[in-house]
Amino acid sequence: MEHPSIIFKIVCPDRPGLVSLLTSWISNYGGNIKHSDHHTDQDAGLFLSRIEWNSNNESLNRDEIYKEFEKIADAVNGQFNVNYSDEIPNVAIFVSKQNHCLIDLLWRVRNGELKMKVPLIISNHSHLENIANDFSAKFVHIDTFKTDKTVVEDQFLNLLKEYDIDLVVLAKYMQILSDSFLKKFSSIINIHHSFLPAFKGGQPYHRAWKRGVKLIGATAHYVTEDLDEGPIIEQCTVNVSHRDEVDDLIRKGRDIERIALARAVRLHLNHQVFVYNSKTAVFD
Amino acid sequence: MEHPSIIFKIVCPDRPGLVSLLTSWISNYGGNIKHSDHHTDQDAGLFLSRIEWNSNNESLNRDEIYKEFEKIADAVNGQFNVNYSDEIPNVAIFVSKQNHCLIDLLWRVRNGELKMKVPLIISNHSHLENIANDFSAKFVHIDTFKTDKTVVEDQFLNLLKEYDIDLVVLAKYMQILSDSFLKKFSSIINIHHSFLPAFKGGQPYHRAWKRGVKLIGATAHYVTEDLDEGPIIEQCTVNVSHRDEVDDLIRKGRDIERIALARAVRLHLNHQVFVYNSKTAVFD
Amino acid sequence: MEHPSIIFKIVCPDRPGLVSLLTSWISNYGGNIKHSDHHTDQDAGLFLSRIEWNSNNESLNRDEIYKEFEKIADAVNGQFNVNYSDEIPNVAIFVSKQNHCLIDLLWRVRNGELKMKVPLIISNHSHLENIANDFSAKFVHIDTFKTDKTVVEDQFLNLLKEYDIDLVVLAKYMQILSDSFLKKFSSIINIHHSFLPAFKGGQPYHRAWKRGVKLIGATAHYVTEDLDEGPIIEQCTVNVSHRDEVDDLIRKGRDIERIALARAVRLHLNHQVFVYNSKTAVFD
Amino acid sequence: MEHPSIIFKIVCPDRPGLVSLLTSWISNYGGNIKHSDHHTDQDAGLFLSRIEWNSNNESLNRDEIYKEFEKIADAVNGQFNVNYSDEIPNVAIFVSKQNHCLIDLLWRVRNGELKMKVPLIISNHSHLENIANDFSAKFVHIDTFKTDKTVVEDQFLNLLKEYDIDLVVLAKYMQILSDSFLKKFSSIINIHHSFLPAFKGGQPYHRAWKRGVKLIGATAHYVTEDLDEGPIIEQCTVNVSHRDEVDDLIRKGRDIERIALARAVRLHLNHQVFVYNSKTAVFD
Repeated sequence: MEHPSIIFKIVCPDRPGLVSLLTSWISNYGGNIKHSDHHTDQDAGLFLSRIEWNSNNESLNRDEIYKEFEKIADAVNGQFNVNYSDEIPNVAIFVSKQNHCLIDLLWRVRNGELKMKVPLIISNHSHLENIANDFSAKFVHIDTFKTDKTVVEDQFLNLLKEYDIDLVVLAKYMQILSDSFLKKFSSIINIHHSFLPAFKGGQPYHRAWKRGVKLIGATAHYVTEDLDEGPIIEQCTVNVSHRDEVDDLIRKGRDIERIALARAVRLHLNHQVFVYNSKTAVFD
Repeated sequence: MEHPSIIFKIVCPDRPGLVSLLTSWISNYGGNIKHSDHHTDQDAGLFLSRIEWNSNNESLNRDEIYKEFEKIADAVNGQFNVNYSDEIPNVAIFVSKQNHCLIDLLWRVRNGELKMKVPLIISNHSHLENIANDFSAKFVHIDTFKTDKTVVEDQFLNLLKEYDIDLVVLAKYMQILSDSFLKKFSSIINIHHSFLPAFKGGQPYHRAWKRGVKLIGATAHYVTEDLDEGPIIEQCTVNVSHRDEVDDLIRKGRDIERIALARAVRLHLNHQVFVYNSKTAVFD
Repeated sequence: MEHPSIIFKIVCPDRPGLVSLLTSWISNYGGNIKHSDHHTDQDAGLFLSRIEWNSNNESLNRDEIYKEFEKIADAVNGQFNVNYSDEIPNVAIFVSKQNHCLIDLLWRVRNGELKMKVPLIISNHSHLENIANDFSAKFVHIDTFKTDKTVVEDQFLNLLKEYDIDLVVLAKYMQILSDSFLKKFSSIINIHHSFLPAFKGGQPYHRAWKRGVKLIGATAHYVTEDLDEGPIIEQCTVNVSHRDEVDDLIRKGRDIERIALARAVRLHLNHQVFVYNSKTAVFD
Repeated sequence: MEHPSIIFKIVCPDRPGLVSLLTSWISNYGGNIKHSDHHTDQDAGLFLSRIEWNSNNESLNRDEIYKEFEKIADAVNGQFNVNYSDEIPNVAIFVSKQNHCLIDLLWRVRNGELKMKVPLIISNHSHLENIANDFSAKFVHIDTFKTDKTVVEDQFLNLLKEYDIDLVVLAKYMQILSDSFLKKFSSIINIHHSFLPAFKGGQPYHRAWKRGVKLIGATAHYVTEDLDEGPIIEQCTVNVSHRDEVDDLIRKGRDIERIALARAVRLHLNHQVFVYNSKTAVFD
């Protein structure tokens, strides 16, 4: 059986010799690089690297390998991650009433496209409970309208902790999370139903229809405190015409929302996304 | 030889019997409909119709046919146009320094894609004079920076009159026309280098790069007094990634700017665009 | 409540006066046209028309309206259909092992995008039985490998008759239907996992990968006796690169297969597709 | 002023330590890697690498650097190239009557998008001589119809030698080059007006129209002895409908032909294309 891949990511100030430095260690350890991609952001003076490799050498355990990369990262003043392809993260999905993104994500988990577990589904409505039950995920309905936001979000945080959640996906969750919440949990991907930065905020399809655009979009992005300003991971568009009513935009939009969100989640799970300077580099 | 096509367009309040009313007259006259397209905007309560037809019957001249359609339009409280496929309009192209849209439009005129004459090219720079000369178009360089805007725009209006201009195309003309000018001449198509309404205003590629979008766009639209708010005719997008610098966005953008503008001008020349409620219906 | 729409479609030899002829009857009956689209295929000498209208006038029942249109169609030597928006056809879905198209279609039925009933799901494997059960559709597993094809197809025909099926959708049904079957039941839409006519036949993704194409496609088409030669309704593509293995092509392909098939089925259900000369005109 | 970039490309059997081996040399020499991209084709057991770097160290001249990389390549049994960003190759463009690809390529050369010289334009028709003259390129009209193919191709080869041509671009050159010619000169990019492998051979737009496809394509590829089977570099598509006649397909096709060809030539000039096993890996 093949050994799990080790995925090493680093962002550091650019300078000569970085690729050599990183790959020499792996080579000396007997590692075999499967994919490696590097990018220099000239403007920011930053070097970004992702190296996916594996090895038969088991002389170091995962903690030890982590420490080795920590040393390298320290030496170049970098921020780094080490991940393994056999780590399956816990993902909580937040939804409201619409089911298309949730169903799509769960289908992709089932067929192996998305390597993640979904132990927890949270909603401000009860509509999608059956879907959660079918998937054997815990469904928690929290009435965000009747309850104080701080209380609600404390419940969220407790649940995320209880279920050991690594990533939250807002799959058409039509509520805004507070800055206070985001300070405590920040690994969150959202799908916005417009080609951002167009139509930030509410009712994007209605406003797109009114504006008479000839294409509509969907944007998957990390959530930050500035609403709809988070780093963009993926965008999709589809053509529309004067024959399309708002309902048609909503219908057509569902297809690109599902696809943009699924691609973004997959890229995140594969550790292919770097975030810096309020934007992303996506190594695909 | 085939008779020229007659293109009849009307917008009127919706009510039963409109298509029948319009087509009966054509049928009784012995006309043969080549294309006809109708749209009901339920929300606005409007009926839009474009009928392209021809006929061997020459008992009525063009003025008389116009008067016949005027009678029909009056009966249904509609706004209408009658055009003929052998009418070749005069188009003035406004440019600044960038040549890609100008060269592209003139190439399409030469190869017969765009049925228009270009007797006049106006610029606030002298860079593109040779291109105008090669095309045997009058090139007028007006220094918009040193001259009062009112004076400049009066010169524009005189030129448009002198050359009997039907349509102005802003092919990367990086200046704003005043409300006063637009009140006097309003048949103007512009190409904006973003997928509107995103990145309205200046430096859209720089801002798109800074925002980290994953696609950039180009929008061809009619010019109105609200800058970048005019009715959209055509939009194109192209993928970008973190590897693209601003210069790459500009380079990739040129290709979609040319195509979006050319398509919009062609649709306009073919009388396939309806404008109402600050947006368009494009019958393609 | 709004009256159901009446959708009238006709194909006939082109000649002057056809739109007028069709719409005058509707107008005289007090009908209001909601959408009408006409196309003249100059090459084939054919006129195609689709008129969607409704009326408060109930002096004629559906049979009588049918007869009226039959008279018109006879007068112009045309082939015609009359359908109503409140007719919900019975659709049988044929599948093998892959579930993505089936799940997607059933989801669209549930959310109202596809106005059809699915009383019957037929498969040459038993894998997808649960999905059928969840949807309360009859699931019939027929082992096409162990049984003579004629016998199998007779079972199919009996089932189609028993369930009063109007349309069959092959949602990744990896078997070929015989000419004899197609002569007896011909309203069938298939999804082929390539941009036809490229990669006709088996293993299109493997062959696309081997050929090194930079985009892959999916094609929804009506089934005819010439395999993969049926009239094309819809095609979608997605970019691929050298980094994509065959499995990635299969994964990316699933997304465009679902979308191409769903669009084609929707267009068919809305009576927006004309078939003639081995191709389609799609009035969208 | 910045030193020119050095672009090192290698293809070799995969084995551990390759990236380290390549980058260590560069690092030791004091080089700074600007872009590096590596790919392992698991199926073929091959490792592909492109490293773009520069250095202030001028202790080795270009010949010496070449020999250093030759040593590395020999050690890993690889095929390699070393190129410099200040090398501007000589490109000959072959055309027939259509001008759109030629005009587009020359425009991109002039505006700096394509870093190449075009000293020579060869045609089997005289139509495009003026374009060559305007660009100050030698235009050679060789009547391929009246002359024996061997004689014609010998003239081609002599011209390619005389003008020291590095790359030939077939910009809608509607003739087939013989195997014998290709054995003597093989660095050739062609634009085919279909999404290969669909519609190989002649009249692809006519056949696409007849088949009723819903999208048409253009494919830029290297030319090999098997017609239309060469490694694909870039493909573009555009939607078409039943309203499009063959002439519309040809018109729409011109836009994607220009773009696909220009992208492919740019990728080639930037040494971003690897060719192996009859396909390409494009590092973009």
